[in-house]
Amino acid sequence: MILNVLADRYASDEMKNIWSNEGRIVLERDLWIAVMKAQKELGIEIPQEAIDAYEKVKDNVDLESIKQREKVTRHDVKARIEEFCDLAGYQHIHKGMTSRDLTENTEQLQIYQSLLVIRKKVSAALLAFDEAANKYKNQIITARTHNVAAQPTSLGKRIAMFGQELLEAFKQLEFTIEDFSARGIKGAVGTGLDQMTLFEGDMAKTTQLEEKIAKHLGISSILNAVGQVYPRSLDFKIVSTLYGLSSGPSSFAKTLRIMAGNETASEGFAKGQVGSSAMPHKMNSRSCERINGFHVILNGYMNMLAGLAGDQWNEGDVSCSVVRRVALPDSFFAVDGLFETFLTVMQQFQVFEPVIERENAYYMPFLCTTTIMMEAVKNGAGREDVHEAIKEHAVGTLLDLRSGKIQKNDLAQRLSDDKRVGLTGSHLEQIIQQGYQLTGCADIQVETFSNAVAEIIKKYPEASNYKPGDIL
Amino acid sequence: MILNVLADRYASDEMKNIWSNEGRIVLERDLWIAVMKAQKELGIEIPQEAIDAYEKVKDNVDLESIKQREKVTRHDVKARIEEFCDLAGYQHIHKGMTSRDLTENTEQLQIYQSLLVIRKKVSAALLAFDEAANKYKNQIITARTHNVAAQPTSLGKRIAMFGQELLEAFKQLEFTIEDFSARGIKGAVGTGLDQMTLFEGDMAKTTQLEEKIAKHLGISSILNAVGQVYPRSLDFKIVSTLYGLSSGPSSFAKTLRIMAGNETASEGFAKGQVGSSAMPHKMNSRSCERINGFHVILNGYMNMLAGLAGDQWNEGDVSCSVVRRVALPDSFFAVDGLFETFLTVMQQFQVFEPVIERENAYYMPFLCTTTIMMEAVKNGAGREDVHEAIKEHAVGTLLDLRSGKIQKNDLAQRLSDDKRVGLTGSHLEQIIQQGYQLTGCADIQVETFSNAVAEIIKKYPEASNYKPGDIL
Amino acid sequence: MILNVLADRYASDEMKNIWSNEGRIVLERDLWIAVMKAQKELGIEIPQEAIDAYEKVKDNVDLESIKQREKVTRHDVKARIEEFCDLAGYQHIHKGMTSRDLTENTEQLQIYQSLLVIRKKVSAALLAFDEAANKYKNQIITARTHNVAAQPTSLGKRIAMFGQELLEAFKQLEFTIEDFSARGIKGAVGTGLDQMTLFEGDMAKTTQLEEKIAKHLGISSILNAVGQVYPRSLDFKIVSTLYGLSSGPSSFAKTLRIMAGNETASEGFAKGQVGSSAMPHKMNSRSCERINGFHVILNGYMNMLAGLAGDQWNEGDVSCSVVRRVALPDSFFAVDGLFETFLTVMQQFQVFEPVIERENAYYMPFLCTTTIMMEAVKNGAGREDVHEAIKEHAVGTLLDLRSGKIQKNDLAQRLSDDKRVGLTGSHLEQIIQQGYQLTGCADIQVETFSNAVAEIIKKYPEASNYKPGDIL
Amino acid sequence: MILNVLADRYASDEMKNIWSNEGRIVLERDLWIAVMKAQKELGIEIPQEAIDAYEKVKDNVDLESIKQREKVTRHDVKARIEEFCDLAGYQHIHKGMTSRDLTENTEQLQIYQSLLVIRKKVSAALLAFDEAANKYKNQIITARTHNVAAQPTSLGKRIAMFGQELLEAFKQLEFTIEDFSARGIKGAVGTGLDQMTLFEGDMAKTTQLEEKIAKHLGISSILNAVGQVYPRSLDFKIVSTLYGLSSGPSSFAKTLRIMAGNETASEGFAKGQVGSSAMPHKMNSRSCERINGFHVILNGYMNMLAGLAGDQWNEGDVSCSVVRRVALPDSFFAVDGLFETFLTVMQQFQVFEPVIERENAYYMPFLCTTTIMMEAVKNGAGREDVHEAIKEHAVGTLLDLRSGKIQKNDLAQRLSDDKRVGLTGSHLEQIIQQGYQLTGCADIQVETFSNAVAEIIKKYPEASNYKPGDIL
Repeated sequence: MILNVLADRYASDEMKNIWSNEGRIVLERDLWIAVMKAQKELGIEIPQEAIDAYEKVKDNVDLESIKQREKVTRHDVKARIEEFCDLAGYQHIHKGMTSRDLTENTEQLQIYQSLLVIRKKVSAALLAFDEAANKYKNQIITARTHNVAAQPTSLGKRIAMFGQELLEAFKQLEFTIEDFSARGIKGAVGTGLDQMTLFEGDMAKTTQLEEKIAKHLGISSILNAVGQVYPRSLDFKIVSTLYGLSSGPSSFAKTLRIMAGNETASEGFAKGQVGSSAMPHKMNSRSCERINGFHVILNGYMNMLAGLAGDQWNEGDVSCSVVRRVALPDSFFAVDGLFETFLTVMQQFQVFEPVIERENAYYMPFLCTTTIMMEAVKNGAGREDVHEAIKEHAVGTLLDLRSGKIQKNDLAQRLSDDKRVGLTGSHLEQIIQQGYQLTGCADIQVETFSNAVAEIIKKYPEASNYKPGDIL
Repeated sequence: MILNVLADRYASDEMKNIWSNEGRIVLERDLWIAVMKAQKELGIEIPQEAIDAYEKVKDNVDLESIKQREKVTRHDVKARIEEFCDLAGYQHIHKGMTSRDLTENTEQLQIYQSLLVIRKKVSAALLAFDEAANKYKNQIITARTHNVAAQPTSLGKRIAMFGQELLEAFKQLEFTIEDFSARGIKGAVGTGLDQMTLFEGDMAKTTQLEEKIAKHLGISSILNAVGQVYPRSLDFKIVSTLYGLSSGPSSFAKTLRIMAGNETASEGFAKGQVGSSAMPHKMNSRSCERINGFHVILNGYMNMLAGLAGDQWNEGDVSCSVVRRVALPDSFFAVDGLFETFLTVMQQFQVFEPVIERENAYYMPFLCTTTIMMEAVKNGAGREDVHEAIKEHAVGTLLDLRSGKIQKNDLAQRLSDDKRVGLTGSHLEQIIQQGYQLTGCADIQVETFSNAVAEIIKKYPEASNYKPGDIL
Repeated sequence: MILNVLADRYASDEMKNIWSNEGRIVLERDLWIAVMKAQKELGIEIPQEAIDAYEKVKDNVDLESIKQREKVTRHDVKARIEEFCDLAGYQHIHKGMTSRDLTENTEQLQIYQSLLVIRKKVSAALLAFDEAANKYKNQIITARTHNVAAQPTSLGKRIAMFGQELLEAFKQLEFTIEDFSARGIKGAVGTGLDQMTLFEGDMAKTTQLEEKIAKHLGISSILNAVGQVYPRSLDFKIVSTLYGLSSGPSSFAKTLRIMAGNETASEGFAKGQVGSSAMPHKMNSRSCERINGFHVILNGYMNMLAGLAGDQWNEGDVSCSVVRRVALPDSFFAVDGLFETFLTVMQQFQVFEPVIERENAYYMPFLCTTTIMMEAVKNGAGREDVHEAIKEHAVGTLLDLRSGKIQKNDLAQRLSDDKRVGLTGSHLEQIIQQGYQLTGCADIQVETFSNAVAEIIKKYPEASNYKPGDIL
Repeated sequence: MILNVLADRYASDEMKNIWSNEGRIVLERDLWIAVMKAQKELGIEIPQEAIDAYEKVKDNVDLESIKQREKVTRHDVKARIEEFCDLAGYQHIHKGMTSRDLTENTEQLQIYQSLLVIRKKVSAALLAFDEAANKYKNQIITARTHNVAAQPTSLGKRIAMFGQELLEAFKQLEFTIEDFSARGIKGAVGTGLDQMTLFEGDMAKTTQLEEKIAKHLGISSILNAVGQVYPRSLDFKIVSTLYGLSSGPSSFAKTLRIMAGNETASEGFAKGQVGSSAMPHKMNSRSCERINGFHVILNGYMNMLAGLAGDQWNEGDVSCSVVRRVALPDSFFAVDGLFETFLTVMQQFQVFEPVIERENAYYMPFLCTTTIMMEAVKNGAGREDVHEAIKEHAVGTLLDLRSGKIQKNDLAQRLSDDKRVGLTGSHLEQIIQQGYQLTGCADIQVETFSNAVAEIIKKYPEASNYKPGDIL
């Protein structure tokens, strides 16, 4: 017996319940009940007690009993119909339905409910980004482009930047949820023939049935002209949305792995955890690496679903069947594991301020050369002379730093000793000190990000106290 | 000199203009002008005549002159600044801007404008689906699942079904356009430091500048906390949207290739075109095959952009540079070529009604066996006896058809000869004739689809008379 | 508890044993034993009885006991070391080894053994192609390009053609197996420091140890300069080889799905199986669709492993860990399921010769027009006159066939009635009859394919009586 | 007119010549000549002077003239036949050939010749790895796993490690070249009907023709049973081989980007090149980033070709056409650009030894704690006491280093002050000094790598003096 690794090691119970055999059966029963209610409202004779009886037993799932029935019926849906009916003591489900009416809509329900779980966790992730961004908004760091020092920024802004990427993906998630449409109850080739027969040719009722089901299920709408199956590009859309969601955390994780290598920050440890006993300084970015791994995994599942999109033959075939069995649940397990891991990282995130400060001090004089040049010119020096002098000394300083000849960036000293520049040492030091202020709109960007997150948390308040489970 | 194959052979001029060197330069100039106007409104002294002068010459693009300047400046953006300034006779562009402020936003403008072009063509494609769906809504065909006859439907419904897939993707396209946000004018590490310096530390003006630029450009909003670059997952989102759009036409094209193999329909020929001179019956589905090819191509470019998402180091690096140079324009050339090809196919689409009718006649008795059984039971026959009889005769009929022993499905005759069934030949023929009515909600689905398309055409009326260019 | 779908539903026991927790533990133990033997031969003092004791208990796997130990040690490898030592009553395994020495090599062993299983099944698949190719080598069919009739070929040749694709991929598989190199026993950063310490600095022994292990394990060689991990592009190579293997069966499956739609062939049914009770003619290509599905799945896993290749930081990180846990076993489950399914299809493959003959008769006159023209010209007719006449009549015939006006291709009759052509009806019929001979080298190609397969079966004789397990 | 970006900016002339319109025409002519020679040898009457005449003019390519002819013939292959014949003054090419015989084989020739170019460049890249590995084999560095210090290694070994990854991929490249098989001259559906007709039904001659062509072209063999096209999984195999080749350089580039961030090494600058004028210390890893970009691009094209594999319908369709037009040349342009860039990086590669030494000094005491513990125990201390002491002091040291309280790792001092350890300062210093020797088999691994490269250079000596062109 081989377990699903993603479910077994990484996904939360909440997500596993949706995709477990038991969970699926409950969702199917929800759908049957919704159809019965709708049919009753539209005039089909179904006693209220029957519906009540089904509702009462719907969570009573006995996989072994179903399996035994399947050995007799040799038909999985048939076995599940009989089990549910015997539990309830009535025979009113599945009227005018074909197997696809049950399975397509149930799988969409699984997807939809999974999206809601993910929405909660992404909201919590946004909040985690927000809290860290605010905590470190006054911590100046040396921003890097091409992995090399560029200009000052704040650590809070850097964190908000990755949060912003998630925020953009969150809008797509909300759209995907709002726009979600179920296939509906449409029979073997999508014409809705069998329900229409049940309603004795009344097309209006057939349509109303589907509207009622959409409402019951909380899915905004029902697809109109589909075949045996709903278009598989809709599955692709779901997983490309998940891939988008994984990108912000993935970029953050990569950056944190680089920062750990420079000792400016770390994903931290759980309380009591120690690194390698042989190498006590070793704090591996295992969780961040895992986040990057989940991102790669999602890309693989997205490719599977991309391979189904645009490949429908006629009213549908089942070349998609085995692919969806794998890629749909496993995508959700992966993205769920990713956010569980990410939330854990954010809880334990460590910043080594003194190392950051050393880095700032090391690079700051270089970052101020433009200002120095401007001040020197104001003071009467020739622009080209100053430029030449600065270039000489900056390169000299860098080489001496790298060669270990000096421990500290002494560019200011060198420039104050050079008559071509004509600025005093204290003036130069003052310019460099002011370099720490040059973070532009970093603060307001953090604030704007915070406000956006606050709106989201207002909308989905359950996120505000969501705590990740223990991770491996 | 090697040309871009997608642009050279398949894309429309409209799309090529956006992505050509000339087109890009005009977009950059648009951006510079927008920034100047915004800066002027916010108090920076820029004479109106200067702006007018720039606007007057903005379409005057001389690539050779720019190239010569670049040889001197050894900096591409610098060369383009000088060219534009010399043409206008002023030096007011690029104030407080860095190269990335120009290039990131310009590339987003190229993307945005391309999306608008595609929106028009997709709208036209929806209209083409709609027209064909209505034209063939009374043509009954044998719906197939697993590529094997299943139940009746209408050809119009089948077409609307593929249209529906495109319609769903269209909603995503509209969302992508509405939600589109530009990076904004934010300097080397995204803090907006240089504009803020220009506005002497006035953060409100820095923010207002970006709002004004968004408005000028027609892009709904500006991203908040970004780094040197905007998050590359946004590029991925664009191309995954395009991939979604290509799926409906791709499924349709596959189905039409299968139908052509059965001679029920064909993508047709241009007037005067002939098939192979050796084989006059040969009408190859070359354009449909090409549509499927473009779909595969889009998947490849999507993978490239998926490879950039979630891989940002710190405030940004340029490992994305060469990838975006290739994947962004080429994705749009491919999707543009796909819709040009699709629209051409829809203009020439041919249906061979008599072949469809023969297929219907061949399969119809099989599709009515359930009804036959019900009628026989009503008439007094034993259910199990009838079921056995029908199964025997249906299998016998199929084998005789395949073996060529009979030319026509004579199941009705066989059943009328079997006492177990107890129905007359004319009664049986009548049941089978009624099989042609069993298309359920097909008509209303076509109508609903039409209404949805009509709404879209109302919104984007330029689509209603869009005609594809000549294709190879 | 959520099961691995691919393992649970589709993979064979042989493959599951390799990747099960139990199977993995046995492989680890094999490796430990191989290392002990090599160390002993190189002078490390390990009693032969100890090695014998380990060998005796190596298949005795008690997962629960290991789990209990892990709760105490909090280290999975440690727990497995203790379990194995306690079972054997000695403490000689894992000398100078780190966890990676165990896990990297064990995973490679799993891969290697899986490749051998697949080699057997692919050999059996080649044999199945070969047998079908020979069975149907005299069955003339209308070859199709663009899914439209083109020239005659034999069904045997068509089958051999897909077999040829598999044969090409098989050569790659053999190369992959021959070229397979294990990471070796190289410690934490790949320098082999710890074994060298064990051998008191004797570098030659360190190298010999690895050679001996390679030999023990049957893997041709050991990698030289690696880090903590072997290059992940090697994993990519494995799965791209599997993807290549899946392509021939996938192309065949697509073609068979199309043929089923035309009723010329079918994947058949298991004995006793019936189609839909409502539609007795319905024989769905479920297994072929599944083969195509597995092909898509393999592409997804290949993408995951492509996402790890070229992404090694320094001496290695574990961003690959979660990805490999998923993609390696699941790739093998998928390809294993694919070949099990394919072999089942080949056992039940059905050909409907009369339908093929009808198709041949329908198209043959068109396929002979070139010959007809040549004969007419020989007979004294003007080339351009004949060409014009043939074109007119061919198009006319086709339209009448499609419109149902005629049931049978009467081109010969039409041409014999046209004085411009000047050939008698019997002459024309004779030409068309000879059309059935125009299959060129089809026979020799089948024979050549057979010979190649025979060579392979000689090399891997266990394939000749491999039978697939029952599939769902 | 939109140029192919990859060709225009990154690929070498050698590669562009193969894929240019002119280059392709020359290859087609080579094929025609090879076919003529083979046909002559097999008895078809073709005068030697004719062949000579064709050979004489084969490089005389006038695209404009061909274009004018195409306007008349409306058939591209026809136009090229006429042009070549008129240039030569004979009409002996294309006998018994169809267009596919020309185009499939020519495209394979383009692929094959491109593979040979790439083999040369990869050999040169291996040599570059080798030279750098030897140059830095005595430079001890701190190996990192999880991007965190782990054990000592040599920089030479680190470089050889990435070289090893390329070496493994090189073996696959050699196999791909050796195993390369052309489609052969097989007519419209792959039965070779038309050549057989030319040879008056002589099957042996038809086969010999293909063998001769294979020999002429230097391609090892001809495929046996194919259809209109050769299996598209062979194209996939080519590009997956290229992807494998790009992985070693890509891993190296990533590591170098990280090293540049730590200032231990850099991809260097061309002579005279300066960094940003504002930030003289800024040395961006632009070329390494580009290498990583090319790797992502190759993955995209590989996905396109993966999308064609396993999707052949019947004897072939052209849904592959547009995809191959894009993905085949562009894959080779990308991989060519990657190796040009890589070779340039290796020419300019800079190592900052003093920074590396500082890093070693910073981490070395941590790396020696195991040895220290062993020595202390030998000296009479209790194992658990020492372990506790070391752990305390190691953590304390690390925190003080990070907080800036100390500048230098003083773990030895702390331990010598602690009575629980019982070792003198000089003893401790000596242990730490010996840490620099703990590189295990690093030297021999570099040597083994060198030997393997030397073998390759002996085989392909043109690689030894290959110099990359100037890159952007």
